[in-house]
Amino acid sequence: MTTTLDAAYAYAETHADRFVQELDALLRIPSLSGDPAHAGDVRRTAEWLATHMQQIGLNNAQVMETAGHPVVYGEWLEAGADRPTVLVYGHYDVVPAAMEDGWDTPPFEPVIKDGRIYARGTTDNKGQLFIHLKAFEACLQGMGTLPVNIKFLLEGEEEVSSPNLRPFIEAHLDLLRADVCVISDTSMRAIDEPAILHSLRGMTYIEVEVRGPATDLHSGFYGSAVHNPALALVEILAQLHNADHSIAVPGFYDDVVPLTDADRAMIAHNPLSEAELIRQTGAPASWGEAAYTLRERVTARPTLEINGLVSGWGGAGPKTIIPQKALAKISCRLVGNQNPHRIYELLKQHIESLAPPTVQVEVRLLTTGEPALIATDQPAMHAAVRAYERGWGATPIFTRGGGSIPIVADMYTLMRIPVVMMGYGLDDDGLHAPNESYSLEMFQRGINTAIVYLDELANLPH
Amino acid sequence: MTTTLDAAYAYAETHADRFVQELDALLRIPSLSGDPAHAGDVRRTAEWLATHMQQIGLNNAQVMETAGHPVVYGEWLEAGADRPTVLVYGHYDVVPAAMEDGWDTPPFEPVIKDGRIYARGTTDNKGQLFIHLKAFEACLQGMGTLPVNIKFLLEGEEEVSSPNLRPFIEAHLDLLRADVCVISDTSMRAIDEPAILHSLRGMTYIEVEVRGPATDLHSGFYGSAVHNPALALVEILAQLHNADHSIAVPGFYDDVVPLTDADRAMIAHNPLSEAELIRQTGAPASWGEAAYTLRERVTARPTLEINGLVSGWGGAGPKTIIPQKALAKISCRLVGNQNPHRIYELLKQHIESLAPPTVQVEVRLLTTGEPALIATDQPAMHAAVRAYERGWGATPIFTRGGGSIPIVADMYTLMRIPVVMMGYGLDDDGLHAPNESYSLEMFQRGINTAIVYLDELANLPH
Repeated sequence: MTTTLDAAYAYAETHADRFVQELDALLRIPSLSGDPAHAGDVRRTAEWLATHMQQIGLNNAQVMETAGHPVVYGEWLEAGADRPTVLVYGHYDVVPAAMEDGWDTPPFEPVIKDGRIYARGTTDNKGQLFIHLKAFEACLQGMGTLPVNIKFLLEGEEEVSSPNLRPFIEAHLDLLRADVCVISDTSMRAIDEPAILHSLRGMTYIEVEVRGPATDLHSGFYGSAVHNPALALVEILAQLHNADHSIAVPGFYDDVVPLTDADRAMIAHNPLSEAELIRQTGAPASWGEAAYTLRERVTARPTLEINGLVSGWGGAGPKTIIPQKALAKISCRLVGNQNPHRIYELLKQHIESLAPPTVQVEVRLLTTGEPALIATDQPAMHAAVRAYERGWGATPIFTRGGGSIPIVADMYTLMRIPVVMMGYGLDDDGLHAPNESYSLEMFQRGINTAIVYLDELANLPH
Repeated sequence: MTTTLDAAYAYAETHADRFVQELDALLRIPSLSGDPAHAGDVRRTAEWLATHMQQIGLNNAQVMETAGHPVVYGEWLEAGADRPTVLVYGHYDVVPAAMEDGWDTPPFEPVIKDGRIYARGTTDNKGQLFIHLKAFEACLQGMGTLPVNIKFLLEGEEEVSSPNLRPFIEAHLDLLRADVCVISDTSMRAIDEPAILHSLRGMTYIEVEVRGPATDLHSGFYGSAVHNPALALVEILAQLHNADHSIAVPGFYDDVVPLTDADRAMIAHNPLSEAELIRQTGAPASWGEAAYTLRERVTARPTLEINGLVSGWGGAGPKTIIPQKALAKISCRLVGNQNPHRIYELLKQHIESLAPPTVQVEVRLLTTGEPALIATDQPAMHAAVRAYERGWGATPIFTRGGGSIPIVADMYTLMRIPVVMMGYGLDDDGLHAPNESYSLEMFQRGINTAIVYLDELANLPH
């Protein structure tokens, strides 16, 4: 087996520059799933991927419709029915990016500098999903075959919480049937400390809109006589946390699985110090629940964050109005076993209970995602550990992720297969931030490890 | 004298349509003083006015430089040195306006509908200042002369609190010397209830910026571990008012002149009912200090209003970031004898005292304006009362204005002359709001009353 893998490694090495050029082309399409104006770009990205799948030897490659942005599917089942099948999930959509957010170079014109490629989507998730396409290509073209069957499921709505993927999976359970799902959409702290995620946070994302007067008012004529919607909004938002920084929404923590000593010990293998947090974020200090370590706060505790505020005048100079309305975008990261819809109801009830009669308050649900907790002691996980040891050259640790990949919970629930999160990103790749980038060394080592993982999965019970 | 005034009236009536066409042309120039991108439009408006002044017979008409947007000056001194001189002040700049704020028609393409002209600046202040230019023209062209000397001082920075007008006046005290200043930049409740303002509120306008991490962060990776700047901002802003809706900044009320029973009785002549407030604003209810009537709140009490909030993601759909920073625009309307710079210091001290060490908070001063209180029992005021009785057909009441015209305090202090505020607007003209408009009947009656006022001022001691 070692000989044949060497042929795949050799192919990947020989074609390394071309792989990066192809990734560059993929990064140039601004596949912003949250912005209707970019729907055409999202579709163009899907079509690019389907064409690329055909070119590298995947069969049945196609763009498949959903109620929203399309899914890209491709498969290679020639290992035979007696071999296991691995389903690779990735997402080709990205979050918004604009120069004025602080990018040094245009976010959709990739630039390579000091061994890193800079563009929106490099690490999240175009670069990481491309690892699996290139590992497939390297196996098929280098070895002439694969030790397992493989299916690709690439979605275009992950950054808007995958509203249409669950129905898509339900409608295509036969097509997608597999023995294990592998996802590379997470990260490690340092390049020599690979990590397998076994927990992800879910999400409830809402908008709170406060409306007062029928139009913007002259603040001199009506100031102090009507309730300023921006003031009413901040008065409400300031009541959503307790003095100890915990969340003040009644019932919010009811379904949170308490951390055991063993849980906390496992989390402690991947500590996050105050100094490191400050270095990574540039924040003046840490903040949050003193009863939990920083790593626990960012992975194993639920959150309530204000993602945006919009009201009245935000341009240069003064404008003396009482704004007609004020809007907050708020998201909660959820942990097992919180239910995103129940959390929405609790938020809505609480916020409405804080609303004074002097304004109108509306709470709207934008998206939800289930949290996921996956057992670490099972064959697909063991295979992943060995793949890192052989392909990456280091034993991985098991970690919890702070982010949300709603599909993980869905895969687990709908397909009843283990989901193995082999993240090939670095914690400080800057995803969702200006100057997102991806290490080309990670890209190369990821391809090699993904090749080994296919080999290790050959013996998976199925 | 009646005969000669009739000639001026007749001229104004004959040329009424042309007057409106000229106003239309003036309204089409988007003279947004607060937006550097419109500096050229502001200057173009000044040049338009100077040319127009020359055309209607004013002498020495010119655009005069300041450190900011220019002043337009013109004069007619042929009544002779034994006659009083009246200085007319107005402003030709406007606040921002955009279709997306809720305008039914483009804000700089005037439309006449149901006897009203709709455009940004119609009532504030292009329409009202134009009344005085047209009254001058009607007198000079209709009667061949004027009973008084007249000077025009039109500025282009009133909407950004006139930062350069005070130095301009100080540098041109001889040029501007007059016996009375008349300003039409205020309003009456109903067309048959003319009002002379004798009090205006001042202003302190600040920005509060809260900064946390060095860039926007992924809320899944850092949520609950750094202080969200938007949360820190709302926590600060929610502490700026007391539970009784008074302002919680220590020392804020120290210099406020308490209202006497006589003051409150005068204010009560122009009541503002809950129903009327709701009708005018569309707000669900009133709000504010229960110890003061609604009219007192909007004219004789200081305010603290949030004019704008900007933080993080405000576009369509979700974006799961912790914003790097959060900004609030805040303005206080001030009453006699509050000092705008002292108020700024109090605001800055208090807000900084509320800032937690987990974020950085910066308080910046944008603009200031002095409040003004003017005696009602003096000849220039009596002349104005008679002008309304003769020209408008109704006896005016004395009122306090909620808005700010910083020049009023400056005129009073620097030139030592009475400032008479004969407002020819209606309270619900919608200034600073979408669909600002101006009644063409007000425009016509304003011209007639301005003609009479020149006549009444002929006997002013000087």
